Amino acid sequence: MSTFTAINPRDGAPVGPEFPEATPADISAAAARAAAAFERWRRVPPKERAKALRAAANALADARDEIIATVDLEAALGDARINSELARTIGQLHAFGDLLDEGAYVEAIIDRANPAATPPRPELRRMLQPLGPVAVFTPSNFPLAYGVAGGDTASALAAGCPVLVKGHPSQPATSELCARIVRAALAQTAGGADVLQLVHGRTPDTGRGVVTAPEITAVGFTGSVAAGRALFDVAAARPEPIPFYGELGSLNPLFIGPGALTERGADIAAGLSASISMGAGQFCTKPGLVFVPDSDAGRDFVTMLAARLDAAPAGVLLNENIKHLLANKMQATLLVPGSKCATRRDWPPDRGFHVVPSLFVTDDATFAAFPELREEHFGPVSIVILCAPDRMPALATQLGGHLTGTVHAAPGDAAWAAPLADALAQHVGRLIWNGYPTGVTVVPAMQHGGPYPSSTSSLHSAVGTTAIRRFLRPVAYQNVPDAMLPPELQAANPMGIERLVNGRRTYDAL
Amino acid sequence: MSTFTAINPRDGAPVGPEFPEATPADISAAAARAAAAFERWRRVPPKERAKALRAAANALADARDEIIATVDLEAALGDARINSELARTIGQLHAFGDLLDEGAYVEAIIDRANPAATPPRPELRRMLQPLGPVAVFTPSNFPLAYGVAGGDTASALAAGCPVLVKGHPSQPATSELCARIVRAALAQTAGGADVLQLVHGRTPDTGRGVVTAPEITAVGFTGSVAAGRALFDVAAARPEPIPFYGELGSLNPLFIGPGALTERGADIAAGLSASISMGAGQFCTKPGLVFVPDSDAGRDFVTMLAARLDAAPAGVLLNENIKHLLANKMQATLLVPGSKCATRRDWPPDRGFHVVPSLFVTDDATFAAFPELREEHFGPVSIVILCAPDRMPALATQLGGHLTGTVHAAPGDAAWAAPLADALAQHVGRLIWNGYPTGVTVVPAMQHGGPYPSSTSSLHSAVGTTAIRRFLRPVAYQNVPDAMLPPELQAANPMGIERLVNGRRTYDAL
Repeated sequence: MSTFTAINPRDGAPVGPEFPEATPADISAAAARAAAAFERWRRVPPKERAKALRAAANALADARDEIIATVDLEAALGDARINSELARTIGQLHAFGDLLDEGAYVEAIIDRANPAATPPRPELRRMLQPLGPVAVFTPSNFPLAYGVAGGDTASALAAGCPVLVKGHPSQPATSELCARIVRAALAQTAGGADVLQLVHGRTPDTGRGVVTAPEITAVGFTGSVAAGRALFDVAAARPEPIPFYGELGSLNPLFIGPGALTERGADIAAGLSASISMGAGQFCTKPGLVFVPDSDAGRDFVTMLAARLDAAPAGVLLNENIKHLLANKMQATLLVPGSKCATRRDWPPDRGFHVVPSLFVTDDATFAAFPELREEHFGPVSIVILCAPDRMPALATQLGGHLTGTVHAAPGDAAWAAPLADALAQHVGRLIWNGYPTGVTVVPAMQHGGPYPSSTSSLHSAVGTTAIRRFLRPVAYQNVPDAMLPPELQAANPMGIERLVNGRRTYDAL
Repeated sequence: MSTFTAINPRDGAPVGPEFPEATPADISAAAARAAAAFERWRRVPPKERAKALRAAANALADARDEIIATVDLEAALGDARINSELARTIGQLHAFGDLLDEGAYVEAIIDRANPAATPPRPELRRMLQPLGPVAVFTPSNFPLAYGVAGGDTASALAAGCPVLVKGHPSQPATSELCARIVRAALAQTAGGADVLQLVHGRTPDTGRGVVTAPEITAVGFTGSVAAGRALFDVAAARPEPIPFYGELGSLNPLFIGPGALTERGADIAAGLSASISMGAGQFCTKPGLVFVPDSDAGRDFVTMLAARLDAAPAGVLLNENIKHLLANKMQATLLVPGSKCATRRDWPPDRGFHVVPSLFVTDDATFAAFPELREEHFGPVSIVILCAPDRMPALATQLGGHLTGTVHAAPGDAAWAAPLADALAQHVGRLIWNGYPTGVTVVPAMQHGGPYPSSTSSLHSAVGTTAIRRFLRPVAYQNVPDAMLPPELQAANPMGIERLVNGRRTYDAL
């Protein structure tokens, strides 16, 4: 049996017990348990599913100290961040509970029979129903909020889909602990413990095994473009292809207008520095490209930003793989003629996975010529492109897909900002005005998912309650007797949900 | 330049002019025109898009006689069917016009800023926006309703996406005529003619060229599992994978309970015979599998059904390819030991693509053992499985994905029907009670799309106004000034649409 151990990012030393790499038999058994659990879970009414999610949330809250200690050993994120991530994780489970209690997420549509029509129309009633067991791949950078009990799991369970988690190998004890807590809580509910399954693994074969398990009907994944695309390809090549919701890499371009630069350049440098260096830059929404007017004010801004980053505390990267990848990307960027490093300190430091922020500066001709500069540097690194403001809207149209795009504009920048914002919105899932992309607010109006490669399905979101839609499919019932219909579609509207009946939105009974 | 000519299915002789196979340069040029048109079309307000769709609908209605004559030459469907299909096509365009006028299809969600929250919450406003140019592959069996101006085109144009149609090679004159009519109508609207592009082709290379055109952002496809899967794989393998909405093959299993058989066996035989033979069985919803109680009454039913089919008029298949495929599938089915043909007449007839209905009968052990029996016979052919009624729920769980599933039950069948219907609903997009799957009603509550292989994305529908969701992606705006937002998200709610504001459904201004 192959095993592995977590590494403490602060010193690079092994920490915690050995965890077994899942065998093909382990994966098959876990997928079979998830499929068996689906037969129960899909029949559990939404309000009972809500209770199960809240029970999981409360159990996580009760284990706060143990969770924080475990995450910090494996991810070195510090108490404050882990506490806030745990709060988010708990909040997400409650938010899906509220969504289920409200009940309209099933998008009920009813068109009444019309025997007088030509041809006669049958009664048709349609609602969303769970897809089946869902595989979730957790990332290293959100051990809790996108971990075993994170957003993908919460949205799948809310939909009525059991979850088979492939835990990230950097945080096996965290995965194991969260699974134990949530399974124990679920065991006391209508769900039962088996709606959540966990396997460990660090080899590509294990990941492929999870995606190809015949019982799995969809995949939620958060991670790198390389790993995500490889598993997307596996999902698409299955005998029965399944949807693969990959939240991959993003450069999160940020544009600064000349007016904004004059009006509040120092403030932007401070805010941007915090956004770049926060969490050692290991956020999918870290601003990786900053377009700055090529002017004296722009060059002064770069100096301010670099000074801020030089003054920022060192961070810790999550694992050795991230450290190596970042070192390689930075090496490639340093070799680009016409690109220079504006920050002062050497990198990398000498022990564990410590890192200091770095800022590179280039011009738009170099940026266009060297694809290295358009690759994600996963860590506290950003690239400034100094260019003429009137070039920026055109540059925005040449960007690939990103999770976010940001515009900093003063009132005098309006003529510049309008076409830029319009172009940018075509390439991102979220457009931010005079702000910073990190710090994703978990509300229904959030969109976390943009054109490829930032996600593999820009039609859906990985954050917020709309994420549930990824794991639901419509089923229409034609002339089915009322008593045999799901309550959401029954004439009396016993769930009291809003429904579209003959084209009219109503809470009324039929 | 390679060219091809349509074939008249009634006599097998060439009909109409030669049409050019699209070259790679033709495809590139058409995709580039669609992309240029997107820059205008995506800015056209929904109510103006509605006017454009209605203009197209009216132009098609005005050309009724020419359309009917052209379709009949290439598809041999007869005036009555073509008339009704044209009415459906026109109706679909109007239905999307109504959807756009109503406006809530953008699923607007607004979460107000809360500076007092920890951390402070920004203002977030989210709505669905068009993906980009969409490729549509038209099938031979719905020359109008899924043709150039059919459901896929209507839903994509409604979404704000220009369409590049790859016309089915069996009906090039029909495609050309519809494109000419619709483009002329659109030229008089805010859309402009170029939001609709048409290329012809009958080689796999042409199809691949359309799917791989970099400007294309999604594909709507109706056709066979083999062709659809091949193009799905091409879409998934692109450098930037795109969603592929394939409506492929389906067996549409139908189950008859013992009580229903006793109560109205003769009626069911008549209804089922009509459903199997209608349109020469060339519907994706044709009932291809019929599960009948293995009893004297069941065997009598088979005799009645075979007699009905023997008495049904001969039909005409759409093209030589369908004829050959059907002959091959029937040959394979005839070779299965334990399967026999219950209908009387020989097949195939001797000229054109004429066909008569056929019924095969087998038992559940044979059905389980021979995968040939679980393949779609595209034509007026169905397979009866005689088996014990209490085996039927288990058999339903072993079916793959289908567009529809049907249960015929009398009151006395209730204990049998409940688990069967539950199992069947897990494998289909539409569950039909005491009816027949053909004759798809075009209403918002319709679901046309089931688990693979009946469709490549069971999350969405190819029929009805919800089909628009396939071509829309969410975009969130964070703290963006009101005046720069799309009207749907502005504070005053100038579109007057229902929005979800802070979790509450409302038509109110903010």
